[in-house]
Amino acid sequence: MEFTINQVATMLGGEVKGDGSEKINMLAKIQDAKKGQIAFLSNPKYEPYIYTTQASAVIVKKDFSPRKPIASALILVDDPYSSFTRLLEEYHKLITFQKTGIEEPSYLGKNSTTGKNIYRGAFSYIGNNVRIGDNVKVYPHVYVGDDVVIGDNTILHPGVKLYAGTRVGRDCVIHSGAVIGSDGFGFAPQEDGTYKAIPQLGNVIVEDNVTIGSNTVIDCATMLGDSTIIRQGVKLDNLIQIAHNVEVGKNTVMAAQSGVSGSSRIGENCVIAGQVGIAGHLVISNRTSIGAQSGILKSIPDSDQVIGYPAFNVKEYFKSYAVFKQLPDINHRLRELENKVRELRGHPTDNR
Amino acid sequence: MEFTINQVATMLGGEVKGDGSEKINMLAKIQDAKKGQIAFLSNPKYEPYIYTTQASAVIVKKDFSPRKPIASALILVDDPYSSFTRLLEEYHKLITFQKTGIEEPSYLGKNSTTGKNIYRGAFSYIGNNVRIGDNVKVYPHVYVGDDVVIGDNTILHPGVKLYAGTRVGRDCVIHSGAVIGSDGFGFAPQEDGTYKAIPQLGNVIVEDNVTIGSNTVIDCATMLGDSTIIRQGVKLDNLIQIAHNVEVGKNTVMAAQSGVSGSSRIGENCVIAGQVGIAGHLVISNRTSIGAQSGILKSIPDSDQVIGYPAFNVKEYFKSYAVFKQLPDINHRLRELENKVRELRGHPTDNR
Amino acid sequence: MEFTINQVATMLGGEVKGDGSEKINMLAKIQDAKKGQIAFLSNPKYEPYIYTTQASAVIVKKDFSPRKPIASALILVDDPYSSFTRLLEEYHKLITFQKTGIEEPSYLGKNSTTGKNIYRGAFSYIGNNVRIGDNVKVYPHVYVGDDVVIGDNTILHPGVKLYAGTRVGRDCVIHSGAVIGSDGFGFAPQEDGTYKAIPQLGNVIVEDNVTIGSNTVIDCATMLGDSTIIRQGVKLDNLIQIAHNVEVGKNTVMAAQSGVSGSSRIGENCVIAGQVGIAGHLVISNRTSIGAQSGILKSIPDSDQVIGYPAFNVKEYFKSYAVFKQLPDINHRLRELENKVRELRGHPTDNR
Repeated sequence: MEFTINQVATMLGGEVKGDGSEKINMLAKIQDAKKGQIAFLSNPKYEPYIYTTQASAVIVKKDFSPRKPIASALILVDDPYSSFTRLLEEYHKLITFQKTGIEEPSYLGKNSTTGKNIYRGAFSYIGNNVRIGDNVKVYPHVYVGDDVVIGDNTILHPGVKLYAGTRVGRDCVIHSGAVIGSDGFGFAPQEDGTYKAIPQLGNVIVEDNVTIGSNTVIDCATMLGDSTIIRQGVKLDNLIQIAHNVEVGKNTVMAAQSGVSGSSRIGENCVIAGQVGIAGHLVISNRTSIGAQSGILKSIPDSDQVIGYPAFNVKEYFKSYAVFKQLPDINHRLRELENKVRELRGHPTDNR
Repeated sequence: MEFTINQVATMLGGEVKGDGSEKINMLAKIQDAKKGQIAFLSNPKYEPYIYTTQASAVIVKKDFSPRKPIASALILVDDPYSSFTRLLEEYHKLITFQKTGIEEPSYLGKNSTTGKNIYRGAFSYIGNNVRIGDNVKVYPHVYVGDDVVIGDNTILHPGVKLYAGTRVGRDCVIHSGAVIGSDGFGFAPQEDGTYKAIPQLGNVIVEDNVTIGSNTVIDCATMLGDSTIIRQGVKLDNLIQIAHNVEVGKNTVMAAQSGVSGSSRIGENCVIAGQVGIAGHLVISNRTSIGAQSGILKSIPDSDQVIGYPAFNVKEYFKSYAVFKQLPDINHRLRELENKVRELRGHPTDNR
Repeated sequence: MEFTINQVATMLGGEVKGDGSEKINMLAKIQDAKKGQIAFLSNPKYEPYIYTTQASAVIVKKDFSPRKPIASALILVDDPYSSFTRLLEEYHKLITFQKTGIEEPSYLGKNSTTGKNIYRGAFSYIGNNVRIGDNVKVYPHVYVGDDVVIGDNTILHPGVKLYAGTRVGRDCVIHSGAVIGSDGFGFAPQEDGTYKAIPQLGNVIVEDNVTIGSNTVIDCATMLGDSTIIRQGVKLDNLIQIAHNVEVGKNTVMAAQSGVSGSSRIGENCVIAGQVGIAGHLVISNRTSIGAQSGILKSIPDSDQVIGYPAFNVKEYFKSYAVFKQLPDINHRLRELENKVRELRGHPTDNR
């Protein structure tokens, strides 16, 4: 991956000042950049670095007028920060999709089809009757069970496990060690104190544009024909637990180590912080915000900001918690008051 | 997997009304069922669907008398719901145990033996001196270390890791990404502030009929000859942490993301909800029930229902918590009372 | 692995009493030991076992004088307990480093180099431009992405995943299923309610002598050139979440299922218990101790012992919590007092 400064400038709709024929192959911060790299200057407090940087090129604002000579070529644009961000995104895309082809040994079952331009890493396993779209990346040690369907441009990082029957949409990113479709935790207690497993026969549906973090687990639905559903645009962080028959609504974001119990329905555009626990069979309304480590034991019918265990309104929680910190003092004041009232009523002071 | 309606009826001890020779290959809900599928009718509110369903067969109660013509064949039984559940279980068993044989490449070490009818998926790894029973399923990417013993009918889902010396009983199910036998977290502080690892030389014993969820971790015991023990019938959900030298008693159920610290002993038939933390070296008595997100810092000598951090009796916790929510009001009432008492005692009001 | 009793005595600087030519191949507790095994006697309460043990040799204190005949050979040392611990460590080292060589199939990319005496297990994957030091153990199903660097004597247990660009020091131990270098959880909210992924282009640096537990996840830094850093001597337990751009200071110990949000800096020699959550962009000072399940929402400028949600000083927390348990009683006392004061002020009692 190597471009000339002129090529980058053209891509950004900018103008080159200096030698545009030099090649660059990496992005860097202006204070760290070396020859062959490109940096940007947006915040004026970093201006001194532009006179000493070894970057081959620096992206600057159109009207930037240097106060000293500059060794680097300049690319003049309207907004250096957003231009650099765009380069970062392009660079990320290049890296992300650079792997293609099939490394051996890898395993492809019967009646399975894969689209154009896909990557199947060594030791990846694709079962029978699987359908995989274009540009999909199946990294090493990924397991794709029978009858799975995966949409275009989706990336399965090393070691992802998709149980049989899972459906994943397009433009999804699933990180290492995530497990999708394992058995829901359903056991019927028997009279002798043992538990009998309830067969878990549903699947998991992950819609388009979903990100799932490393070592997160999503269990399948219980009944044949039912699905645990992760709606489009959902972003799940690492080490999250999503139980059987849960539905997570569109564009909801959930931070690391949170868990949702069976059959709960999370609304759209919710923001759920880390280490939150949500009990089973609840309905959480759209745009609810849940503070870190909260325990949700009741449905939340109106979008609210809650925290605590069990959680309630975040402002009220912190008011109560402020008093919680003074509880020993409050207890003391109460006892003093009891003594004073006892005196006022003509009884002797109790010094217990 | 395909049976005639007559074959299914015979299995259920039921009677066929209609064409019993048609083949069915799938179960479904009555409102969703298609040709080739079998459904059931138990709850009368679903009766309307039986007149429109495309199911090839419907399981109904013996004395069911249709009010309109029905296109599907009927299987008459005593209890349609439990008959259908039995079919689900048989179906689940068929799916679960359908994989057999050896996919290549897979790795089998020296002096290791495997029983009858086993499945070794591609990229599965079995070390040296391993003994594996009959009907065991070793899915792709499973790692079985040296000297491991695995009982009959146990299923290791894709990516399970069993460290050397682990023993797993019969009829166990271990889900993807679970790690059994990794080093206990034991470090001796040194004078210079660093920590020195205490060698972890014990193992893990998982008894019969245990289920272990995805990405759950069970550490080995510290001393050579000691074991972390998961007793028969225990059900562990996903993302659980079981530290070194812990024992989890018979038929105890533990929900997702809970953790047990080193050397604690959990009794039999306990029910431990999600995200619970149990400190080290405790004894939790049989039939204890622990609420979600609780922190257990002391042993629980009598079976109790506890919650909170630190946890105490669940009813008392919620009584205290109800007052916690009113703490700002209580603080206000206390201050008013102080002012009134000050007045009664002839002092001026303090408005702080 | 087999030594004579004489060889063991020489290693320990001890003296043999009895037949030193017998071979031993295992360590055991004195009450369990069998022929061919070596045990120790330190605590006098275990003395009776030395007269009945089947151990081939027992390590005892120099001045130990038996009261009955002993069948085992004795090894006389200054401190039997620390001698036995040393044997355990040597034994552990032998086991840990016994695997060497290359099992096939395994994958080694272009321009990658490995040191002397390394182990590459079957189905391990090493990408391009990777540098691996001497004595490194790469167990089965390990994934090492492109451009990764790994120092001498480091052990990657089965199924570890290192994303491209990760750097791991020497003498590290990384347990099964740990994921290092996955994308930080960074998404920019868009006007239509969707989120756009912010490219995550930094890496993770793990310094020397670090232990990382099973299924723990460490995300990469966001900016190109930045790193999430785990300093030397850090010990991380299982199922921990370390977000992007976090730094964990030297010799800090963190127990299972704790999580640190983005850009927080944890000091040196901190002790962080299990299931703790630390919010983003905080600074935790050296030698801070954080109690289990605490939520840290503010920086901790001075080393302190804290607990609670949000956490404050541990002694104060437990004082407040003691009163929390009595809150229903306090509420009752307050109401009684209100009634009495009302009476004193000449108003009738309110019985609400």
